[in-house]
Amino acid sequence: MAVATERARRPDSFSQAVKEAVATRDVCPFCPGHEAMTPPEVLAYRAPGGTPNGEGWSVRVVPNLYAAFRLEPDGQEQRDGRFWQRDAIGACEVLISSPDHLAPTPLLPRHQVEEIVQSYVDRYRHHAQDPKQEHVLILYNHGRPAGASLEHPHSQLYAISLVPPTLADELQGGRRFHDEQRACVFCRTLDDERKAGTRIVFENDAFVVFGPFAARTPFETWIMPRRHTASFGDLDLASEKPAFAEALQLTLKALRDGLNDPPFNYFIHSAPLKADVNDTYHWHLELIPKLSTAAGFELGTGMWINVVKPEDSAAFLRERVQKLAGQPA
Amino acid sequence: MAVATERARRPDSFSQAVKEAVATRDVCPFCPGHEAMTPPEVLAYRAPGGTPNGEGWSVRVVPNLYAAFRLEPDGQEQRDGRFWQRDAIGACEVLISSPDHLAPTPLLPRHQVEEIVQSYVDRYRHHAQDPKQEHVLILYNHGRPAGASLEHPHSQLYAISLVPPTLADELQGGRRFHDEQRACVFCRTLDDERKAGTRIVFENDAFVVFGPFAARTPFETWIMPRRHTASFGDLDLASEKPAFAEALQLTLKALRDGLNDPPFNYFIHSAPLKADVNDTYHWHLELIPKLSTAAGFELGTGMWINVVKPEDSAAFLRERVQKLAGQPA
Repeated sequence: MAVATERARRPDSFSQAVKEAVATRDVCPFCPGHEAMTPPEVLAYRAPGGTPNGEGWSVRVVPNLYAAFRLEPDGQEQRDGRFWQRDAIGACEVLISSPDHLAPTPLLPRHQVEEIVQSYVDRYRHHAQDPKQEHVLILYNHGRPAGASLEHPHSQLYAISLVPPTLADELQGGRRFHDEQRACVFCRTLDDERKAGTRIVFENDAFVVFGPFAARTPFETWIMPRRHTASFGDLDLASEKPAFAEALQLTLKALRDGLNDPPFNYFIHSAPLKADVNDTYHWHLELIPKLSTAAGFELGTGMWINVVKPEDSAAFLRERVQKLAGQPA
Repeated sequence: MAVATERARRPDSFSQAVKEAVATRDVCPFCPGHEAMTPPEVLAYRAPGGTPNGEGWSVRVVPNLYAAFRLEPDGQEQRDGRFWQRDAIGACEVLISSPDHLAPTPLLPRHQVEEIVQSYVDRYRHHAQDPKQEHVLILYNHGRPAGASLEHPHSQLYAISLVPPTLADELQGGRRFHDEQRACVFCRTLDDERKAGTRIVFENDAFVVFGPFAARTPFETWIMPRRHTASFGDLDLASEKPAFAEALQLTLKALRDGLNDPPFNYFIHSAPLKADVNDTYHWHLELIPKLSTAAGFELGTGMWINVVKPEDSAAFLRERVQKLAGQPA
């Protein structure tokens, strides 16, 4: 558990009478012309001759003002009997999708989605070189019920100095499968899913979009590269970048059109930076729509009850993606 | 992951335009006079001479109409390559807190809270005798954002034929600690917490209420028996039942008064029914207010970012509980 003192609030600020205001376009720190409202940018794509921290960008990346992890501390530990804590070292960034306050990924031109993917890769590779970091997580929250606190579409990056538990579980599963079968469990899953066909949503030359067999929620969807690659940082910019942008945009558009713009989260699971898992891990994106509430059962058991069969979810999205894939982007 | 065919919905029923109606008192299946709207009761406390499935009950327990687990199937497995599934065997029950549609636990007379606890124990012990079951989970969801779909206050019971992952993790931690220290990690935690004092919310003769050191959310609070007991089914009805009812009600009332009735979930973690963990496990209740949204970071990492220090949460609740504890129940 991470205590974020930079975000700290007084206990009574959680009283249910207090409602936070949502930033409108007038005061949106991510809109062009408001660059001074954020910390100085760490990356931006501009036409040649553009001014840093000025307008005219297509994607802009800035440090997260409400960072749960910081680079400064030196990782001090405190131990008081069994109560152990250490500084949360890391970096938190916001990747602003486009200058348009009202255009989420499905509504952007395809080349802009490729720019977003390029910014993911650039910042991933940047943090992957920091010897203090163990893992880089890139994620997107859409809609207030899914935790998006600002309306202007943006992704987030967390570079952290530990391997998170969820990833550790996946790594362990991958290693165990490899020990037994001398194969990557993710590659095998792609083979099995393509053979079965019933949970496939979309395929192009480089990616497969499918509903996992043990989907946690209705419409949970994974996007996985066909090429066995442990790290997202190794995305091939020539062949895989446009294919990933296509798969991501079509999936999000099918979800938006089919379910009237539901809230969702997606995140990219990529190999830890320092572990040698090239044979056993395989990066992928997990998309989880927020269509139900994790309540006492889910919290108490760690199990999810899914009220839609993954085959039905996949068929619903597949039909919509097939229509969209025929349209010009 | 459990697919609940009994709750199955068509994919497009998740469109964000569809809103479910909340049952009002007129049509509430849990209100007195509406007993025929539920399956026949499996337990009810009534004055002698009362009629089963009639009015006049103080607590009433009925099978959950929307059960994710059923007793009927014989546990058939299906295997298609690596895709393995089996029937979800179990029992799901609803424990109606009182006849009063508008009275959650904090507003009930203390003797009624004791009746609720009695119903927990009775139904726990009933299902613990079923050789098909591995675990019994009792939980409470309060408020729509915490997943309560019916307004009338009620708890839920799940008897399931497997040990859930969250509990398996706790069991493993308890076993490892016991191997190293020859002691119960939960007993040791109680000692350490009482010595530190800063995260204690309330104590009586039999229970300690405290904010755990690694609290996942603001105001996460645990209620733990001082007597080392692995199973909730072994609650001592003479001494521990009233003490547990007191601790639970005061905690919920402090939360309600202090934060203006926030949504929350609580669940009781108790030993698996068949494992010999008498030395290493220690039952307890975990209360998790729903004050923030688990978003991409939490889903992607399995880690929680808590924006309030657990010491501040505990101090806030402690102050309110102390005032309440001085008042007549």
